[in-house]
Amino acid sequence: MFGSNNISDTTVSVCGDGDYISLYHSGQLKRFHAVWLRDNAPDPDTRSATNGQRLITLDDIPLDTRVSLTDLKDHSVVITFEPEGKSVEFDTDWLLANAYDNEPPAGVGWLDSTVCLWDASLADNLPCADLAVLQSDPVQLRDWLAGVATYGVGKLHGGAVRSGALFDVVDLFGYVRETNYGRHFEVRTEINPNNLAFTGLGLQAHTDNPYRDPVPTLQILYCLENSASGGENMVVDGFAVAGRLQQENAQWFDVLSRHCANFEYSGADGVRLRCSKPVIELDAEGRLSGVRFNNRSAAALTSVPFDEMPLYYNAWRRMAELIDDPSMEVSFKLEPGECFIVDNTRVLHARKAYDGSGTRWLQGCYADKDSLLSRLATLRVS
Amino acid sequence: MFGSNNISDTTVSVCGDGDYISLYHSGQLKRFHAVWLRDNAPDPDTRSATNGQRLITLDDIPLDTRVSLTDLKDHSVVITFEPEGKSVEFDTDWLLANAYDNEPPAGVGWLDSTVCLWDASLADNLPCADLAVLQSDPVQLRDWLAGVATYGVGKLHGGAVRSGALFDVVDLFGYVRETNYGRHFEVRTEINPNNLAFTGLGLQAHTDNPYRDPVPTLQILYCLENSASGGENMVVDGFAVAGRLQQENAQWFDVLSRHCANFEYSGADGVRLRCSKPVIELDAEGRLSGVRFNNRSAAALTSVPFDEMPLYYNAWRRMAELIDDPSMEVSFKLEPGECFIVDNTRVLHARKAYDGSGTRWLQGCYADKDSLLSRLATLRVS
Repeated sequence: MFGSNNISDTTVSVCGDGDYISLYHSGQLKRFHAVWLRDNAPDPDTRSATNGQRLITLDDIPLDTRVSLTDLKDHSVVITFEPEGKSVEFDTDWLLANAYDNEPPAGVGWLDSTVCLWDASLADNLPCADLAVLQSDPVQLRDWLAGVATYGVGKLHGGAVRSGALFDVVDLFGYVRETNYGRHFEVRTEINPNNLAFTGLGLQAHTDNPYRDPVPTLQILYCLENSASGGENMVVDGFAVAGRLQQENAQWFDVLSRHCANFEYSGADGVRLRCSKPVIELDAEGRLSGVRFNNRSAAALTSVPFDEMPLYYNAWRRMAELIDDPSMEVSFKLEPGECFIVDNTRVLHARKAYDGSGTRWLQGCYADKDSLLSRLATLRVS
Repeated sequence: MFGSNNISDTTVSVCGDGDYISLYHSGQLKRFHAVWLRDNAPDPDTRSATNGQRLITLDDIPLDTRVSLTDLKDHSVVITFEPEGKSVEFDTDWLLANAYDNEPPAGVGWLDSTVCLWDASLADNLPCADLAVLQSDPVQLRDWLAGVATYGVGKLHGGAVRSGALFDVVDLFGYVRETNYGRHFEVRTEINPNNLAFTGLGLQAHTDNPYRDPVPTLQILYCLENSASGGENMVVDGFAVAGRLQQENAQWFDVLSRHCANFEYSGADGVRLRCSKPVIELDAEGRLSGVRFNNRSAAALTSVPFDEMPLYYNAWRRMAELIDDPSMEVSFKLEPGECFIVDNTRVLHARKAYDGSGTRWLQGCYADKDSLLSRLATLRVS
């Protein structure tokens, strides 16, 4: 009953009185608990065959669930669960792809293997494409979206020079995130602007709307006119900046990730946005998951302990220096019909000052990464 | 030069060679570093007088900034910074309100003081209002929004019985979050549904779209027809559930917050959404910031270490039991023209099964908390 099966380089055995199974494959051991297997059973009584949604709740799984029997086939393992007496066939590749019997990540600030960090040398390899081509060619679209997912930034050219053309970009993969700035906003010099973005001033590299929760995870800036002198755009990889900061001094990285900064915006009537989140954000497992940096909307720090405040300011100052370091930045001047997109949880953007001779008119909007990554995932399997 | 000033019950002195000041007020000591004060100076060269945005960067603040002089006035402190030789007047109340010289929060899972946990006994005190009244009375709107912010749930009645009337609710405070389900979605029995929500099945209490990042932070479900037998809605405070879990066994709370669960949805063509986030989410400072629970879209756990998996399942199972505990739930049956809103990062919702006699037609949509809290903040100051 607790014996093991063996097919070519795969062996499976029931262990721990049926608490778990051991799957040896190509010299690697992956163990799977009975309760995990039962919960993830792919049979049609457990999972909807049409939409993949789970049909049972945890309460439907007996507390004393265990494996009584395994049967190894060419590409699958049949597992029998007690006390239900239920046999379910698991695809072996699926088991190996979803194995959790792994070394935990070491330390904090690690990144998914899909992320590529970059500096100024990305200039010649920025993901670029023709908007009209992407609208008709799913392979090109897939490759450009993959570039945006990998680097957190991408450029497009060949778009229409028409108010609202920026929505053509969002339509490639998702949906506009409407905010108090509208479905889109105009970026040009205004009289009595309610935001410094709407002046000719240079803007230090920043992420947008850190005072908003949830923060918009994508931003598109689309050029309609750009004959003014200056006004170049720059982008900086905030994850690369955070990585350099950690290499220089791990305490700096830690102090910026362990405490929330405050961000605030109340420049317009009827708007009082406020958010407390760290400048360097880690997820529950220590993965680097976000960067927020915006000197214009940074409010007073209120939750950094007194004894750590000098360290915090030193860290924040050094981070700002790294952000301003030209060796980290890629810059370009958008022509009418060109645009760029940034992952606003990772990549900072900036613009150089411009003056009144000539005109500069960009339109901007926000969208979210979930739909971009979903579109990319479907293009990859199709 | 380093003496102290004293007005009634307030004293201020320069300390640590000008590194910080000590402000005694009503027997309490609050210290403020020179660099923090300089960074938060409210003078018009530092902060835009019109929109409150900061005009300087950290790089503009000298590295050796210190306080040379303080001058106490009736309601303000004038502080002179070296080496700039710059004097700036700070409102004393503002300093005390933004003081950071506080005890750090103890442990994990703490809540902002504005959050009120609840159980079934909230039934008689659920924030309820008439939609038409809220559209014309800012004081009533403020109070209802405050209730939603405090409890994470609210009900409305007196709305129109018309497709799209749910947008009237969003218009009270913010903007729709459009997704692959559209600007809104229909909740009624469908043939070949791509989501179990669109059947007559009962649905265990859940948060919506945990497979999306950023998750929609607000959900509105609006009733247009409800003559079917059954189909009552239920809401459960996920923060109260997490608190009970932590009280019963702190290890259960910890294991659910330290590891990411996986959520997945690919029920429709062209959609493959996937997200890894913890079931119980803490922010960088240990504050309880979110709950995700949805058996239908829970994918296989892949980042819980092997040795912790049994503990994880025990914790998850107990959490599910607490969610299903009738003593935690508030239930109601919506009439046409009624709706409810939930904070989808905190409050779970459920529905009882309904059958084919009569009809049940709800419309749902998503929105975000940032604009709701912004609207509430502006109503509070006006």
